[in-house]
Amino acid sequence: MARIVVALGGNALGNTPEEQLEKVTYAAKSIVDFVKQGHEVIIGHGNGPQVGMINNAMDFSSKNGGKTPAMPFPECGAMSQGYIGYHLQNAILREARKQGLDKNVATVITQVEVSKTDKAFENPTKPIGSFMSEEEAKDLMAKKPEIICKEDAGRGWRRVVPSPLPIDIVEKDAILQLVKNGNIVIACGGGGIPVVKNGEGDYEGVAAVIDKDFASEKLAELVDADCLFILTAIDRVCINFNKPDQKELKEITVAEAEKLAGEGHFAPGSMLPKVVACKTFASSKEGRKAIIVSLEKANLALTGESGTVIVK
Amino acid sequence: MARIVVALGGNALGNTPEEQLEKVTYAAKSIVDFVKQGHEVIIGHGNGPQVGMINNAMDFSSKNGGKTPAMPFPECGAMSQGYIGYHLQNAILREARKQGLDKNVATVITQVEVSKTDKAFENPTKPIGSFMSEEEAKDLMAKKPEIICKEDAGRGWRRVVPSPLPIDIVEKDAILQLVKNGNIVIACGGGGIPVVKNGEGDYEGVAAVIDKDFASEKLAELVDADCLFILTAIDRVCINFNKPDQKELKEITVAEAEKLAGEGHFAPGSMLPKVVACKTFASSKEGRKAIIVSLEKANLALTGESGTVIVK
Repeated sequence: MARIVVALGGNALGNTPEEQLEKVTYAAKSIVDFVKQGHEVIIGHGNGPQVGMINNAMDFSSKNGGKTPAMPFPECGAMSQGYIGYHLQNAILREARKQGLDKNVATVITQVEVSKTDKAFENPTKPIGSFMSEEEAKDLMAKKPEIICKEDAGRGWRRVVPSPLPIDIVEKDAILQLVKNGNIVIACGGGGIPVVKNGEGDYEGVAAVIDKDFASEKLAELVDADCLFILTAIDRVCINFNKPDQKELKEITVAEAEKLAGEGHFAPGSMLPKVVACKTFASSKEGRKAIIVSLEKANLALTGESGTVIVK
Repeated sequence: MARIVVALGGNALGNTPEEQLEKVTYAAKSIVDFVKQGHEVIIGHGNGPQVGMINNAMDFSSKNGGKTPAMPFPECGAMSQGYIGYHLQNAILREARKQGLDKNVATVITQVEVSKTDKAFENPTKPIGSFMSEEEAKDLMAKKPEIICKEDAGRGWRRVVPSPLPIDIVEKDAILQLVKNGNIVIACGGGGIPVVKNGEGDYEGVAAVIDKDFASEKLAELVDADCLFILTAIDRVCINFNKPDQKELKEITVAEAEKLAGEGHFAPGSMLPKVVACKTFASSKEGRKAIIVSLEKANLALTGESGTVIVK
């Protein structure tokens, strides 16, 4: 029996509520497979398309006569945790019942602490929300100096926020208690609601996006998980990806992963952060392993039939 | 030491994120006062203004070129649980730390089961979302036969949904485990995400609004609470309310409450459902009591210095 944290991509959840309702059923199958094998499972998930949708709708309505207030970004993230958690917990419960598994599922609204002095705050890079004209963007920045907008690859202007590293998970104890009590737990949705500690040591929301793989990795460390699963679109990590000499990796050490990353085998913003999260987890304590695998073949990864395992 | 479920009104949380951030601090004080007295506390809360805002924004954006999809009502409710839970848990944690109390706080996304055969489904009465013209309303009903709109007191047309009674709380075990483990728990936000059991026994979201006092009462029964607190704007329930012979009630029995309700002392849609929820809880098991009191004087109610106690 192992304790497993599974990081699920927000892109695997679709772009509309109807798509999401369908897609969570695939994720639910993989999760229930793990639980049937006797493992404790906590699910972290992304929220890129979902928080984007919520932020865009709130933004559009507040600016165009919808008579609803402007909504800060951390609050939109909190909404996305409720929205995705509801569909996901319901689908997992359904799949569990179908497979005769007497398990409960719970979603915990999660705040993830980042450092005010994280270098990411000096150079925000993560685009959020809808496109604007140059004029709209400059007007917004003049009115709200805390907001930074950048031109996005010729497609117009967008707001950008930093992507700082997670340093703690505020609700870690509750998450651990729930999984120890036999629940399947959903937490750290969208990388968590980003908060910083203010002068009095209290948490305060900040406009930022925490990488969901890094947040899941931090969670895996804090709940003393044995295994971190990062689910993605491909069955195994490759070197020379999309080239004639492409080669799948079955198991690599942290040192090997570092070497391959240095050689540029993993795309930044795509496979690289996943490999980095895995390296971090595998290095954090003896016996911990991290696995990158597709959602479809996740249950084959513990026996080595699929996936790329990263070990110390 | 008692286990307490506190039902907090959505109207006590303000209409914008800024207002909510401020108002949750008052609620946090009352909650932490209870916990300092040694009690276990679970908070249920309303979401009327909040889910209205989310639903209106989603609706406005999807219909007016915001390029975001239409959002079903249960999903808006799930979003409101994340949104309110985030602010509330953060404020309670801050107040606890300030008062030197080493407690964690967790929000559980909660589905509340209602019956498909609940009479409320035959006559939806609860207005949600924004106002429409008669033409828009009739057009919407023609396109989506599951949607019912009604004329709302001369102010235009609005969608109406039923307000069925809660019969079970899907995440009750997780909520109970968390409170037993020493956490302050936020659950059943907005009366819960309303779900029905379909043919296979799986839960499915329905467009409905569950009264938050009834949902909190059901939760209090299911977690075997000793006491249900319903927080409202006044310090004590009154008979002959707003009349020259108005009289505050300090303690009444279930039989007395029934008699006074029958005499029309409690306004439907306002004090009546609160009294009914209290009667139900006080009748459900020997020794259980229910209290209606203001947020400000909640901590005086356990000693009888404020509030109206309803006992069996």
